[in-house]
Amino acid sequence: MEKYLLSIKKNLDHIADVDIPIKDIKTLTSNAVIADYTSGEYFLRSGEESRKVGFVAGGLFRLFYIDFAGKDYTKNFKNTGHFMGALPSLLLRTPSKLNIQALENSTVVCYDYDDILQFAESSFSWQRLLRKITEIDYLEKEQRESDLLFYDSKKRYQNFRDEHPDWDKKIQLRYIASYLGMTPETLSRVRKNL
Amino acid sequence: MEKYLLSIKKNLDHIADVDIPIKDIKTLTSNAVIADYTSGEYFLRSGEESRKVGFVAGGLFRLFYIDFAGKDYTKNFKNTGHFMGALPSLLLRTPSKLNIQALENSTVVCYDYDDILQFAESSFSWQRLLRKITEIDYLEKEQRESDLLFYDSKKRYQNFRDEHPDWDKKIQLRYIASYLGMTPETLSRVRKNL
Repeated sequence: MEKYLLSIKKNLDHIADVDIPIKDIKTLTSNAVIADYTSGEYFLRSGEESRKVGFVAGGLFRLFYIDFAGKDYTKNFKNTGHFMGALPSLLLRTPSKLNIQALENSTVVCYDYDDILQFAESSFSWQRLLRKITEIDYLEKEQRESDLLFYDSKKRYQNFRDEHPDWDKKIQLRYIASYLGMTPETLSRVRKNL
Repeated sequence: MEKYLLSIKKNLDHIADVDIPIKDIKTLTSNAVIADYTSGEYFLRSGEESRKVGFVAGGLFRLFYIDFAGKDYTKNFKNTGHFMGALPSLLLRTPSKLNIQALENSTVVCYDYDDILQFAESSFSWQRLLRKITEIDYLEKEQRESDLLFYDSKKRYQNFRDEHPDWDKKIQLRYIASYLGMTPETLSRVRKNL
C-alpha cells in the first residue's frame, strides 16, 4: 500500500488545490485494500449495492450503462491515478445502475465510502475536499452534456484525442464512439477525414 | 428580506438534513438583495460572467441552453423555495452557457456566490452544506440522464406529472417536451393516451 500513498496524495492535492498532509492520506487509507482485476473483470456490476470507491493504482476501466433496450452507453473511462465509483448509488444507498469493468489488467486501492464519510466528519479540510470531488464530477458531466450540444462529431473527437491521446490508441472504437455520442461508423469517418 | 429567511432556512435544512440556526441564515443573507422579474425577463443570459445565485422567493424560472444549431434545450425548472444558478460558470469563473428566464412574474433573493464561498470558509457545517448542495445538483443530473436511458416517453412523462403536477399544468407543452427529451408531438400523443 505504502507505494501508492504518494499517487493518491497527488490526485487529492490536485482536486483540493492544497497540500494534504501525508499522515491524513495514511489515516484515510488505513482500512483500504488492494485488489487486482484482469481485463474484462468487473469492479462493479449494475444491480449491486456497493459501498466501494476505487483508486486506480494502475490500469484502465470503463464505466457504462445498459439501457432498457439493451443498448450500451459508455459514461466515462478512469485510468491510473484517478478515483472511480458509482456516486448516485453511494449517496442514495441504492443499487448501482452503473457497470465498471477493467479494460486491461488493473490494480485498485479499494475504499469503503462510509470510512471516507466518517473520516470527513472529523475535519473541515476533508469536508471541503469531498465537496471539490463532487464539484469535479459535476463539471465533468456538465462538460460532456454541453459538448454534445455545442460541438459537432469532428470537434468532439478532436477534443477527446487532444485530452487523451493514449485512450484514443488503446480503447476500442465502439467504446470511444459511444462515449462521444456517435455511431462507430461516424467515428470511423471522422478519423479518416482528419 | 426578513419574511423570506424562514423559507430559505427550510430549503437549506432539507438539503443539509440538519437544523441550521436562523442567525446563520441571517449572516449568509446580509448582503443579498431582492429583485423582481416580470414574465419573460432573464435572471441570467448565456455569455454573461455572473457570480449570482438566486433563491426563488416566489415564481417560476426555466433554465435552458441554445445549441450550435440554434435548438433550444430545457435543462430544468426552478420554482418557489429553491436555489438556482449556473454552477459550472460559478465554479470555473467562465461565461455562462445557461440561460435562466422567468416563466411568470417572480421574486428572487440574489446572493453573490463569492459571499457564500467566503462564509463557508469559516465553518465546517457550511462546508458540509455546500457539498450537499453540489451532490443534489449532481444527483438531479444523473437522474435525468438515467431516466432518458431507462424509461420510455410515457414513463418519463408520468414521473414528471407525479413529481410536479403544478408544472404540468402551467408550463408550455414545448418546454416540458424539451425537458423530457421528446418532441412536442410525442408529448401530445403520450398525454392523449393516458
